[in-house]
Amino acid sequence: MPQKQKVCLAYSGGLDTSVIALWLIEQGYEVVCFAADVGQDEDFDAVRAKAEKLGAKIYIEDCRDEFVKELCFPAIQCNAVYENVYLLGTSLARPAIARAQIAVAEKEGCQFVAHGATGKGNDQIRLEEAYYALKPTIKVLAPWRMPEFYEVFKGRSDLLDYAEKKGIPVTSTKSKPWSMDENLAHCSYEAGILEDPDTTPPNDMWKLTADPIHSAADKPEDVTIEFEKGLPVKLSAESTGSETEPTKLFLAANALARKHGVGRVDIVENRHIGLKSRGCYETPGLTILRTAHIDIEGLTLDREVRALRDQFVTFNWSKILYNGNYFSPEREFLQASIIESQKSVNGQVRLRLYKGNCIVLGRSSVSFARLLSSLLLLSLSPMLTYFEHLQQTEKLYDASMASMDEIGDFEPTDATGFIKVQAIRLKKYGQMKAEKGERL
Amino acid sequence: MPQKQKVCLAYSGGLDTSVIALWLIEQGYEVVCFAADVGQDEDFDAVRAKAEKLGAKIYIEDCRDEFVKELCFPAIQCNAVYENVYLLGTSLARPAIARAQIAVAEKEGCQFVAHGATGKGNDQIRLEEAYYALKPTIKVLAPWRMPEFYEVFKGRSDLLDYAEKKGIPVTSTKSKPWSMDENLAHCSYEAGILEDPDTTPPNDMWKLTADPIHSAADKPEDVTIEFEKGLPVKLSAESTGSETEPTKLFLAANALARKHGVGRVDIVENRHIGLKSRGCYETPGLTILRTAHIDIEGLTLDREVRALRDQFVTFNWSKILYNGNYFSPEREFLQASIIESQKSVNGQVRLRLYKGNCIVLGRSSVSFARLLSSLLLLSLSPMLTYFEHLQQTEKLYDASMASMDEIGDFEPTDATGFIKVQAIRLKKYGQMKAEKGERL
Amino acid sequence: MPQKQKVCLAYSGGLDTSVIALWLIEQGYEVVCFAADVGQDEDFDAVRAKAEKLGAKIYIEDCRDEFVKELCFPAIQCNAVYENVYLLGTSLARPAIARAQIAVAEKEGCQFVAHGATGKGNDQIRLEEAYYALKPTIKVLAPWRMPEFYEVFKGRSDLLDYAEKKGIPVTSTKSKPWSMDENLAHCSYEAGILEDPDTTPPNDMWKLTADPIHSAADKPEDVTIEFEKGLPVKLSAESTGSETEPTKLFLAANALARKHGVGRVDIVENRHIGLKSRGCYETPGLTILRTAHIDIEGLTLDREVRALRDQFVTFNWSKILYNGNYFSPEREFLQASIIESQKSVNGQVRLRLYKGNCIVLGRSSVSFARLLSSLLLLSLSPMLTYFEHLQQTEKLYDASMASMDEIGDFEPTDATGFIKVQAIRLKKYGQMKAEKGERL
Amino acid sequence: MPQKQKVCLAYSGGLDTSVIALWLIEQGYEVVCFAADVGQDEDFDAVRAKAEKLGAKIYIEDCRDEFVKELCFPAIQCNAVYENVYLLGTSLARPAIARAQIAVAEKEGCQFVAHGATGKGNDQIRLEEAYYALKPTIKVLAPWRMPEFYEVFKGRSDLLDYAEKKGIPVTSTKSKPWSMDENLAHCSYEAGILEDPDTTPPNDMWKLTADPIHSAADKPEDVTIEFEKGLPVKLSAESTGSETEPTKLFLAANALARKHGVGRVDIVENRHIGLKSRGCYETPGLTILRTAHIDIEGLTLDREVRALRDQFVTFNWSKILYNGNYFSPEREFLQASIIESQKSVNGQVRLRLYKGNCIVLGRSSVSFARLLSSLLLLSLSPMLTYFEHLQQTEKLYDASMASMDEIGDFEPTDATGFIKVQAIRLKKYGQMKAEKGERL
Repeated sequence: MPQKQKVCLAYSGGLDTSVIALWLIEQGYEVVCFAADVGQDEDFDAVRAKAEKLGAKIYIEDCRDEFVKELCFPAIQCNAVYENVYLLGTSLARPAIARAQIAVAEKEGCQFVAHGATGKGNDQIRLEEAYYALKPTIKVLAPWRMPEFYEVFKGRSDLLDYAEKKGIPVTSTKSKPWSMDENLAHCSYEAGILEDPDTTPPNDMWKLTADPIHSAADKPEDVTIEFEKGLPVKLSAESTGSETEPTKLFLAANALARKHGVGRVDIVENRHIGLKSRGCYETPGLTILRTAHIDIEGLTLDREVRALRDQFVTFNWSKILYNGNYFSPEREFLQASIIESQKSVNGQVRLRLYKGNCIVLGRSSVSFARLLSSLLLLSLSPMLTYFEHLQQTEKLYDASMASMDEIGDFEPTDATGFIKVQAIRLKKYGQMKAEKGERL
Repeated sequence: MPQKQKVCLAYSGGLDTSVIALWLIEQGYEVVCFAADVGQDEDFDAVRAKAEKLGAKIYIEDCRDEFVKELCFPAIQCNAVYENVYLLGTSLARPAIARAQIAVAEKEGCQFVAHGATGKGNDQIRLEEAYYALKPTIKVLAPWRMPEFYEVFKGRSDLLDYAEKKGIPVTSTKSKPWSMDENLAHCSYEAGILEDPDTTPPNDMWKLTADPIHSAADKPEDVTIEFEKGLPVKLSAESTGSETEPTKLFLAANALARKHGVGRVDIVENRHIGLKSRGCYETPGLTILRTAHIDIEGLTLDREVRALRDQFVTFNWSKILYNGNYFSPEREFLQASIIESQKSVNGQVRLRLYKGNCIVLGRSSVSFARLLSSLLLLSLSPMLTYFEHLQQTEKLYDASMASMDEIGDFEPTDATGFIKVQAIRLKKYGQMKAEKGERL
Repeated sequence: MPQKQKVCLAYSGGLDTSVIALWLIEQGYEVVCFAADVGQDEDFDAVRAKAEKLGAKIYIEDCRDEFVKELCFPAIQCNAVYENVYLLGTSLARPAIARAQIAVAEKEGCQFVAHGATGKGNDQIRLEEAYYALKPTIKVLAPWRMPEFYEVFKGRSDLLDYAEKKGIPVTSTKSKPWSMDENLAHCSYEAGILEDPDTTPPNDMWKLTADPIHSAADKPEDVTIEFEKGLPVKLSAESTGSETEPTKLFLAANALARKHGVGRVDIVENRHIGLKSRGCYETPGLTILRTAHIDIEGLTLDREVRALRDQFVTFNWSKILYNGNYFSPEREFLQASIIESQKSVNGQVRLRLYKGNCIVLGRSSVSFARLLSSLLLLSLSPMLTYFEHLQQTEKLYDASMASMDEIGDFEPTDATGFIKVQAIRLKKYGQMKAEKGERL
Repeated sequence: MPQKQKVCLAYSGGLDTSVIALWLIEQGYEVVCFAADVGQDEDFDAVRAKAEKLGAKIYIEDCRDEFVKELCFPAIQCNAVYENVYLLGTSLARPAIARAQIAVAEKEGCQFVAHGATGKGNDQIRLEEAYYALKPTIKVLAPWRMPEFYEVFKGRSDLLDYAEKKGIPVTSTKSKPWSMDENLAHCSYEAGILEDPDTTPPNDMWKLTADPIHSAADKPEDVTIEFEKGLPVKLSAESTGSETEPTKLFLAANALARKHGVGRVDIVENRHIGLKSRGCYETPGLTILRTAHIDIEGLTLDREVRALRDQFVTFNWSKILYNGNYFSPEREFLQASIIESQKSVNGQVRLRLYKGNCIVLGRSSVSFARLLSSLLLLSLSPMLTYFEHLQQTEKLYDASMASMDEIGDFEPTDATGFIKVQAIRLKKYGQMKAEKGERL
């Protein structure tokens, strides 16, 4: 055991990390607590007081802007999602937390960092891979993986007994029958009664969003979101007004989605560690922003870029974040391609929120005339008058439109060649099947 | 021009294909009409009468079972979706229609097939690639790509004039300001006023589903869907009772989703032909079944199989269907892997439907004990009593569970090695960045 | 320490595993040795005698046929390769070895299996993941990761000292300055002087193949390889005669490639464990068979199937094998698609071997007429007479050819439409770039 | 027919394009010939004289540097290859040619561009997609797809007759029985006698490279190639000296490869147009440079970046180039990720060339010490003295090495956890298979 080695502990103020803090002190470490404000609903004064009562110095760092701008916004840009459903709320916060914790560890000259994540989850991996990349020489203490700790503290009652004996104040004597993780982007619920994947979460579990059935607003509300290079740059709605600054914009999206019950999911997912795990997640604002982003890409992103991005970037960026490899060459590699893909993603989307629904009403783009003119190519006959009217009102068109007409030199007969060339291969296949007598 | 060559025309009974039928007859062809019942809301007697009035023989073929079993069900198995949003309702029907049409053409000894799809859309491609694969020697007539036709019929008014002159009855003198395509799986709306992607569809456009805001049922309803090898084999709800036969099950899912306003989307998509196009789609039952399928996969599908399937099969199968290459070696290639992937996808999902929402309530699996026992591994301490209780009730467990306990020989300390091995590469990267003075 | 627990040790007869065997016995285990004959150049009688002298029972199992048919042949079918260069010779043998070892362990009622692989390599992973999948309850002893072993045996001299003290016979007192692994498919060389990736391997290191520069045959030799469903079914060459049985065919390919110096590579690769490692590999016969397989696929595999297979199956199957996950659902998933992809891969390839070169001379296929007739479509004018001659000789054509002519209804003008439709999207892009003044 | 419309014709000086030039003049066009010097073996003075004799102005543009730097070098950076074998020599030249031709067309105010590519090949697509992207308003004349041309000129003899009648000089009265395309990177041979894929190309067909068996140099030669950010920046060999300027370096690589018979391939490939086609290609210098690049990536590229790049970028960039979509948003998208991937690809590779072989002798890197130190981690025991010696010589190490040692805190026992965590999933799978009685 080192003499007064210093350890920077990720500290939440809860029972687990309070016990860990004291236990580390008892093991002879000098403990520096670190708490990250990533937008969770927390009384940080109380957290500070509690740490100090335990005899530890504490740093409370505001990571909200970094979390929104460096993590949530790129997630929106690439439509990040894990296993079709999970929007990565917890995964996205970990890199911001780890970076701030390592900064504190460096400032305080700590040889060690510690955390209270369990030994079977994803968060231990996300935090530690980040620590190691950010500071390759750091040593990690993970008490829930240290037999000298976990063989003593076998359950919540052992923690409570220890807290009582040591005079650690315990906020709520009765824990909820699940564990939670909250930040500005989401709140997660897992373990406990949720481990049975067929148990429907109780109504009072959900913390962030109104219940779509029982408590969401009865009146729908519309919101407009503008994007530049794939990033949300303005959000406007009646109840929130307009916001353009990233964190404020994100919070406004949250306020809207919470009120209208948008963003709940319930999933059995595959952890990095090879176990399956049931998680319930509320991701209010991010759900709205992602929906809008996917929609504006329909109007503004090239088909082939989208296809490559969908197959390659979305899946892998999401997996990398989920698995805790944000600080890695592969994430940087993908990030470069995300930025490249979003050059043309400029425009605005109008959405209607109502009792869990996030309904697309329409979208437009500054460079939209280009697209509309090509859409015009589609119209045969009677609808044209409608468009002639539209064109006269000039609501949507810019000067470049006329020139775009020149490239409309596509003839319907051209499609014949397009189809016949593609059929060459298929005809041979059909012929071969026919000869074999196989049903196509 | 051939003397009395025979052509089998895909005939809807509408204005366009009625004009085409007569025009083909005037060009000297013997016309055999073909109409496919793919579940659209149609008066087939009237269609038959109209064709016969034009002087054409007509076949009306019931393709519903084939459409559900051969197209919709594989789409569910692979979670098919195009550009994140479109569930491929039209694309899925085309292969069933083309196969039935070619069968009629063969029976009637037609040298030609014809259709009324436009020259700038996807359907011409989907139909013709299918025709060519199914019968490589067939010749295709696509009047909307033949100058002798489209230069005469420049707009809807030309069609109406011709119809009036020739005595073709026109059902509705006033067309809706958009075009529609309906089948058992969906209804699409596009063109006309919808071509401006910022025009919100009028409320009365949507035909299949109740409006989530104004007309959906006020009372939520629960539905349970069972899967075997990734296929829905039973659907149960109060208002529909239980259904197990594929088409009836699908129709029951439709009935539920329609009532509760589930399955509307609005998208700007990239056509195969390189143009962007705005489409509004209602896909009621398929939305529910797909949601349930994705959920049951969470519980039952291996992580790595899912990852490979998500990246390669879902994307490519969907693209192949969208682009009209169902009858192709690449689709058969992917189909083999879909079937392989679904071997373990057995279980049931409970959903709650309410005003546009399709909320997962829980899921279970016959082989679920395996998973739950592994989920149990996750629990540290106080929750365990809950599970001990669960185990005593034996509600969910089967005999194999005990044996599974034996493989639970994972120690929390193992995670340390897992993390440290993965950190080797990242530490080197972090070190290199630090030496360069670059921010990670 | 368990009382006389039984352990099945993967035993090579070399210094390391002989020391391990004795050390395990000293630790109180009953040791059952297991040696796999995967085609390496080994005196198995001596291995048997040595094990018995150590006081261990030994099983020597012939895994050659299984290795060739279940591992090497699927590798050929999917053109397996890791990081562009490595043909996976060692990786392919591990599953066959692990399965045979587990079978012995079960027969002998062993609670443990053991191996002599190091703690920083791939083989420990490959063996153990296979053990755990094949027998989830098995316990693994890996002495090179057990401090009580590796802290005692810090280097080769400690092993030699121990061997001398215990009377373990040591075959060669002087070890080669690299480590080797040999089987029927390849021989690998790594570590030692090869760890400096700029050290050119000495000429006398390579064991299996003649040196292309100094000792390969001066006279080229031709070989013909026939495939059915992507599997080699016949190999014919002057010096080997014809072989059709898998293992004999593989050995004949080896004999030819060895004589002509085919199949050496030198690579720095990324291990599963996150380290880079330099390896030199000789893979004689597999190189020839893989080259021929890639070639016959050119003639017989559909373009789109090939594209999906290349992106999806080849890469991932190879990675799965390299990383030791042969016994996994994802490998089975890919295997199903490999088999599906190879249905049409029938034909023969003629190769010329000469001083390290494996030159394709030509290929043909039973269903080749189909392709040739389509190739014929390509010819404009003067060459046609050549083909008319060819057709008269009828050397290559079958009856189906005439019917194929019917589908040759492709007109050069069709290509115009094909190109123009694809240009729609690109013209818009070009226009946009031009407006922005950006160079394309 | 337009009155004196201007057309810029891609002109080679050969029979086909000479006839086309005169035919276009006869059709009433003013013809501006354009010839691109992409490094082919050509007498450009003769080409100029011939064009002028036909009555056409001619521009001869030197595209070699652009071809090497903008096309060949990115191809090396991403290891471009089509269908495992073809190094894209022709495909790479087309964008440079099209850009120069469009520049001439703009300078001369041409409304049209024309080329002599056939209607069933890839080059028509590559050229025209490039024309349309570079100048969306351009019109294309492709005589081999215009019935008024190809119905008159049905074969080579028609062309010869016309040439004789019109006084067009024909260089060689006897054409070779295949067609060729040559540039600085390669020479291709196809059609004619090569259309039978089982016909071995005659020895005298190959133009660029010495025959590995009969005429390649008897003495091997070594070459060293240095890379910075994945680009070759220096090539050194005895017979060529050192070259650093891109085009000269490329030509030096060509000279070496030609002398030693490196770079011949023979393949049946899938054309974009859906036909299969046999091609023989010589790609001397590019083969060497690509081999070296793949090798240096082994030493310098992160595993995960490589995996993502191999699966997505290499395949798709190659396909995009093959299919003629160089000027496209998707190619630009991929290019951004290529550049990002190559940041760390710095170092040098030593190769030995001998009778068709390009043998890697070794490689090193400035940042190589990092890797070697990690490689050192691999060595157990006796080899260490070798490395101690190496370290003393300091030949390869830089100052950062010491610090890298600190991150070598990986313990062999960590691998146990790594393996066991990965086994969690596989044990469950094995258990399930065992219960079902299925063989793994």
